[in-house]
Amino acid sequence: MRSSLRDDVVRALTSVIGADYIRTDAASLDAYGVDALGQGHPPDLVVFPANTAEVAAIARCCNEQRMPLVVRGAGTGFTGGAVPTRGGLVLSMERMNRILEIDETNLLAIVEPNVITADLQRAVEKVGLFYPPDPASLEMSSIGGNVAECAGGPRAFKYGTTKRYVLALEAVLPTGEIVESGSKAVKNVVGYDLTQLLVGSEGTLAIITKATLRLIPRPPARATLLALFADIRAAVDAVSALIRRRVVPAALELIDADSLSAIRDHLKQDVVPPGTGAVLIVESDGMQAAVDEEIDRVAEACRDAGALRVSLAASEEDRDRLWNVRRLLSGALKATGLLKINHDVVVPRGRVPELFAVIEALRQAHQLRIAAFGHAGDGNIHVNLMVDRHDAQQRARAKEAERALFEQVVALEGSISGEHGIGFAKAQYIGLELAPQEIALMKRVKDAFDPNGILNPGKIFP
Amino acid sequence: MRSSLRDDVVRALTSVIGADYIRTDAASLDAYGVDALGQGHPPDLVVFPANTAEVAAIARCCNEQRMPLVVRGAGTGFTGGAVPTRGGLVLSMERMNRILEIDETNLLAIVEPNVITADLQRAVEKVGLFYPPDPASLEMSSIGGNVAECAGGPRAFKYGTTKRYVLALEAVLPTGEIVESGSKAVKNVVGYDLTQLLVGSEGTLAIITKATLRLIPRPPARATLLALFADIRAAVDAVSALIRRRVVPAALELIDADSLSAIRDHLKQDVVPPGTGAVLIVESDGMQAAVDEEIDRVAEACRDAGALRVSLAASEEDRDRLWNVRRLLSGALKATGLLKINHDVVVPRGRVPELFAVIEALRQAHQLRIAAFGHAGDGNIHVNLMVDRHDAQQRARAKEAERALFEQVVALEGSISGEHGIGFAKAQYIGLELAPQEIALMKRVKDAFDPNGILNPGKIFP
Repeated sequence: MRSSLRDDVVRALTSVIGADYIRTDAASLDAYGVDALGQGHPPDLVVFPANTAEVAAIARCCNEQRMPLVVRGAGTGFTGGAVPTRGGLVLSMERMNRILEIDETNLLAIVEPNVITADLQRAVEKVGLFYPPDPASLEMSSIGGNVAECAGGPRAFKYGTTKRYVLALEAVLPTGEIVESGSKAVKNVVGYDLTQLLVGSEGTLAIITKATLRLIPRPPARATLLALFADIRAAVDAVSALIRRRVVPAALELIDADSLSAIRDHLKQDVVPPGTGAVLIVESDGMQAAVDEEIDRVAEACRDAGALRVSLAASEEDRDRLWNVRRLLSGALKATGLLKINHDVVVPRGRVPELFAVIEALRQAHQLRIAAFGHAGDGNIHVNLMVDRHDAQQRARAKEAERALFEQVVALEGSISGEHGIGFAKAQYIGLELAPQEIALMKRVKDAFDPNGILNPGKIFP
Repeated sequence: MRSSLRDDVVRALTSVIGADYIRTDAASLDAYGVDALGQGHPPDLVVFPANTAEVAAIARCCNEQRMPLVVRGAGTGFTGGAVPTRGGLVLSMERMNRILEIDETNLLAIVEPNVITADLQRAVEKVGLFYPPDPASLEMSSIGGNVAECAGGPRAFKYGTTKRYVLALEAVLPTGEIVESGSKAVKNVVGYDLTQLLVGSEGTLAIITKATLRLIPRPPARATLLALFADIRAAVDAVSALIRRRVVPAALELIDADSLSAIRDHLKQDVVPPGTGAVLIVESDGMQAAVDEEIDRVAEACRDAGALRVSLAASEEDRDRLWNVRRLLSGALKATGLLKINHDVVVPRGRVPELFAVIEALRQAHQLRIAAFGHAGDGNIHVNLMVDRHDAQQRARAKEAERALFEQVVALEGSISGEHGIGFAKAQYIGLELAPQEIALMKRVKDAFDPNGILNPGKIFP
């Protein structure tokens, strides 16, 4: 970028949001040039607006100057969605982080985008309400990012992903116009459903400045079960058996042997007995009587599928420990020192056994360590190719395995991303899943929002 | 329309779908010129394609000739969504009416658009599965129409509307291109969510030719409760009390006094004891123990709010009779011989008491009979202005009351339509709810799908 262009933008925005909230120092530019993917390009400047009007002024300025504008929440995304691909302006939502309202009468919350997901959950649970979406990053990730990526999590099995909880959005178009979609009413069919179109649009259509979220009553009871299996096949059989028996617990998480060994190495202690080749964590919630009945049926299905051991969390502490193991997984895999190439493929729920057969075949064919875990009930498995970053041949094999994985997931009638989105990391692959006329249609929708293509360029589309 | 244009189109389509499936006789044109709204304009021809390829050929032909193309399912819509506003071609889905697959392993069904909703429900319930959306028209309306309008129904309170059950769509663009959105996987964040954009788009963006629907396990038990109240205020208080107590049953339906008297006149018998000013029908479903607990809490809340009588349906027959009363309402109101101007406004669920105060004020101010009933738990109330069609002054008062109703619903942070959509009947009012920049954005989205504006012109937008 011409530095005179940057200077022009800095000058224009100084009068709008103040010099204190504009950064151009090298450290800031470097920090805002990467997210959890670990790749990206530094911006030319980073700005920190305080409110919707300031966001609109920033958008107008970028649109006039044709400067790329990349919105950033907590930066916990795995596909580079929140970082520039070729400079421009990063609009950080850090200052817009208030819970504006928890409305107990209408069962909803209104929040600014940078409220941390777990903070919102704690606040609503205090008054007996519940916000189900629970990405593993919930202590760090923000609602705005969750909405932009349509975050999932274990509880999506029963409760659905973020999209099911977004009633209304306030957003700023790249042209600076402010639009509102949806309403506080739980039903609304007036015009097109722009709310659902914005959810999961990865910051490419509009800048979300406020979200109205549907809440539900907090389930009064829950139970958490751990089932140990000798191998992945037995664990996957248990998942299929549950679905056949029409049991839909709140969460149904699977962890494979490679993932278990990474946790053991990371925590320096055994979390499961030797000989355990896979585990299922199952949670049931609802009214006490229903929870008791459901978790019994889960235990029975696990035993029938050959579980080595089935145990119930005896206390809330026990339960937290169980879930922490699950949430530590991503960090444990990173702590191996290997490059963790993290994918979140999804297949129709009944085809999880075939997906694990695919993963095993990839291990053999490409001589790779692959740690797989995730939301087995949804068919949504995190497949982590664990690669020695200094071994060019291994990196090349991983690249081949990545493409083969995506091709086979599509052949299983699944999707190359169930949670993380495309960002720039997977943009080269969307043609495996979408036909040219579908991509062309999406690009026309993009143009309807962003005629000059300034918003998060280089994302989603190849 | 020039009759030579029609002749050209008939000739072109005869070779594609056969002369037997093209009609231009006056009786057909009249029949396909109205839907449940009772207004519209006859088409110039009606065609009955058998498959997606034929639909694509029809679209291409209309697009080339710039001929309006209106898709019609079962014609049960209340806003004129399925009828022309100025001639053109009606594409009836009648022949595309097969359930293609009920997939018990992946918990989904694949259907052609003209499958009748209740037929699908019965088919999936036979194998222990459940398709929740239950518009009152379910014995007549089609899945394609349900998807196009995002149909709701009583069970939406617990289970959500149609949109929550659409996993994937096959659709034909007005240009004749065939696109697929979504997949059989329950999560999918690859590209924009065109599935959710098509749901509720009222046949203005694309022609839905196939739907993949998510199914859930059939709830093993249910209980249905009838609570009688002296007046609407007491019934509405009971609804608020339930929400305060965090009870979310499967359905929470309210019927007011004017509606009750229409049912009595229609059935020529009392369905509730004299002195009943409002009733609630509440249904709970799930595991038996949870249902028992929940329905007890519902009964308690109704009694606390002053219910005259609370009774449980003792048998399945009893239950059907209760729900039939509810489903007969629309017909009973029609049978009054009055013109029934049917609106489906929605407010945030806690503001239902205010909505009923608005309705009462409209009755007084405009000297009208207004029958109100509907999905109280969702804040979605069917407000029927009952008008003597031969009384021009009354019709004029109804027009004033209609606008006042919509203005006040928007002031209550609600929406002018929760289920029926806009069609052409409400197009003049969308400016009450949507800002100019929002309507302009929606029109640009429309252009991205339908560059020549041939698909269902005159709908949604004023």
